Amino acid sequence: MKHIETIGLFGFGVVGEGLFQLLKNNKIMNTEIKKICIKQRSKQRSVSQHLLTYNANDILDDEKISLVVELIDDDQSAYDIVKHALLNGKSVVSGNKKMLAKHLEEFIQLQQIHSSALLYDASACGSVPVVRNLEEYYDNDLLKSITGILNGSSNYILSQIFSKGENYHSALKAAQALGYAESDPSSDVEGLDALYKLVIITCHGFGAYVPPDSVFCYGISQIKNFDIQFAKEKNLKIKLIARVEKVNNDHFTMFVMPKLVQPDEYIYNVEDENNGVIIEGECYDKQLMFGKGAGAFPTASSVLSDITARNYNYKYEYKKRNYFKKMSYSINTELEIYLRYDNLSDYNHFEFESIFEKYFGKGFNYVIGSIKLNNLLKIQKVIKKLDVFLAFTGN
Amino acid sequence: MKHIETIGLFGFGVVGEGLFQLLKNNKIMNTEIKKICIKQRSKQRSVSQHLLTYNANDILDDEKISLVVELIDDDQSAYDIVKHALLNGKSVVSGNKKMLAKHLEEFIQLQQIHSSALLYDASACGSVPVVRNLEEYYDNDLLKSITGILNGSSNYILSQIFSKGENYHSALKAAQALGYAESDPSSDVEGLDALYKLVIITCHGFGAYVPPDSVFCYGISQIKNFDIQFAKEKNLKIKLIARVEKVNNDHFTMFVMPKLVQPDEYIYNVEDENNGVIIEGECYDKQLMFGKGAGAFPTASSVLSDITARNYNYKYEYKKRNYFKKMSYSINTELEIYLRYDNLSDYNHFEFESIFEKYFGKGFNYVIGSIKLNNLLKIQKVIKKLDVFLAFTGN
Repeated sequence: MKHIETIGLFGFGVVGEGLFQLLKNNKIMNTEIKKICIKQRSKQRSVSQHLLTYNANDILDDEKISLVVELIDDDQSAYDIVKHALLNGKSVVSGNKKMLAKHLEEFIQLQQIHSSALLYDASACGSVPVVRNLEEYYDNDLLKSITGILNGSSNYILSQIFSKGENYHSALKAAQALGYAESDPSSDVEGLDALYKLVIITCHGFGAYVPPDSVFCYGISQIKNFDIQFAKEKNLKIKLIARVEKVNNDHFTMFVMPKLVQPDEYIYNVEDENNGVIIEGECYDKQLMFGKGAGAFPTASSVLSDITARNYNYKYEYKKRNYFKKMSYSINTELEIYLRYDNLSDYNHFEFESIFEKYFGKGFNYVIGSIKLNNLLKIQKVIKKLDVFLAFTGN
Repeated sequence: MKHIETIGLFGFGVVGEGLFQLLKNNKIMNTEIKKICIKQRSKQRSVSQHLLTYNANDILDDEKISLVVELIDDDQSAYDIVKHALLNGKSVVSGNKKMLAKHLEEFIQLQQIHSSALLYDASACGSVPVVRNLEEYYDNDLLKSITGILNGSSNYILSQIFSKGENYHSALKAAQALGYAESDPSSDVEGLDALYKLVIITCHGFGAYVPPDSVFCYGISQIKNFDIQFAKEKNLKIKLIARVEKVNNDHFTMFVMPKLVQPDEYIYNVEDENNGVIIEGECYDKQLMFGKGAGAFPTASSVLSDITARNYNYKYEYKKRNYFKKMSYSINTELEIYLRYDNLSDYNHFEFESIFEKYFGKGFNYVIGSIKLNNLLKIQKVIKKLDVFLAFTGN
């Protein structure tokens, strides 16, 4: 049955304001925003002053407020807010992927102990309901893998490169000019944003929490024209993917890496700032969920779906974690990768298990071969200082 | 919390047997099939005899059986089974779209009165979780339209036509040879199968039940080479779509019809026997859900998801129907269509509001114009006897 939620909102940036407008224009919703906590006193706000506060406790300690919606940037402050709210037995809706990816294990326990609920579908793939579907629909052990284009900025950059013939730096500038990439784009282009989302998705897809810093994560900033040319000649595209995959009945593996994508793969047509997630299972082959992964209103609509779910007391049961056989994260797996390198000294950091293809050319060389994920993890920090580019070539 | 379901299964065709295998191989599932009711005594079955019965009441009147899974072909018998089960307070999982589309209104009431639950995600789009997502995730009034390729057989035929240069009749034969179309393909190619699914989807997307026979439904069997050539010359494809669309805050409209599809539309790349559903909303623009719409295992996996949902007492709340402003079905809307005709006497059945484009040629003529949906509905039966082809040209 439906009940009314009284909301305390943290943050009034693009998503927070988008949500406020949405709630105002949808009068039938059983929700009411009682207070909005903001940080900057100087900014002009489009809401009446009596709704605003600068003191978090005005929300966190208000017993009338049943639901905290956390939409701020700073992950440390967000952590404090969410933890305090859960400890006080309040429900929380959050879209802060970095904070969630770091603290999910603790939050799962806090929810159990304090009978509170934390929903965060907006944190992974914006408007595309990936978390909820993994939790509710794919809730049996048929799941084989989840592969996603989870970061709109890097996908926009790669789309520009492959459709407009741009190079990496001009495409990045175009993305920044349009607001698709931050002035410091590192979290997007180095794969961290996708990694945080992958950690959240894995928790609901395979029932295990894996800390972000134990996952191999490699972005697109080292891509060069040779890599682009290599892909184009073979009618391939390069996409930054995040992937978690069942290895056997006891283990799964995961990584974030660019991928050489064939035209017949579903993600081949996921272009621009869009997100796409492929869910592969024993019976249903592959399914694609596709849509806007970011932006004020797509994200706000996802937050709204979590809020209305709380109207019906919905909470994640963490079914895979609680009711299925426990699976462990394994890095003792082999990946097929493309490695472009200029100097043999760079190449020598990589311990390939086997090599399928080699090319030596004027200033550029590449190999395609099989390498252990734990080898890549071991040299993760070194790789970023080398003049190389890596891409997954598996399926 | 999870509890055990004791299942009575009706039907042991490809889906029923697929489900049986799935449950057998997934031992952690809290489910047990106690009885399987079948019709044909002569067939060899891959299960031990003590599980089988030919008497429906062995399941329906067994108090130990908490969940009836109905996977038979005959919609009248399916109706009797589902009704009897719901009256007895049992939960039911069904994939019978024809039966559901005809009797959903009654079943919704029966569920309320007898506190029983009926789940049927397998009935619309096989493995793609459309019903559950519309019910649970898009549960606010931001939804603008749902447009789907809901029938795999007709989509396979149209894909063959556009990718292999086949004509309608050779493509139909190929589909039949591969088992993608029945020996009597009329339900698929005339749009009825898509219509039944649309009725179900509309109930969860817009909260209203519309009987199938009050919806304009037109299939692909009248397509001719001229129509194919017309589309190809403009770099378009023809896809059979089912669509429900919000007209204003009080009304929605719906139909099943072929559509001329532009290359930049998401469904342009939904090929072969696949299904794809585009969910359009105020905030999130358009989202695509894509996957296998039919087949033994994809359908069985969807049935399985409904069964495991019952392990957690999940039932549809029919949220749009119960908690949102009631919307009414309207046929007083205008559609932009392409109409190919050979004879003026055929053309004269159509009362266009306005004409945007006209072509007179050797043996073939067409117009593109705007027509009222109630005009099309009025002449629905006549159209099938004319030498014409219709396709939606709107967005």
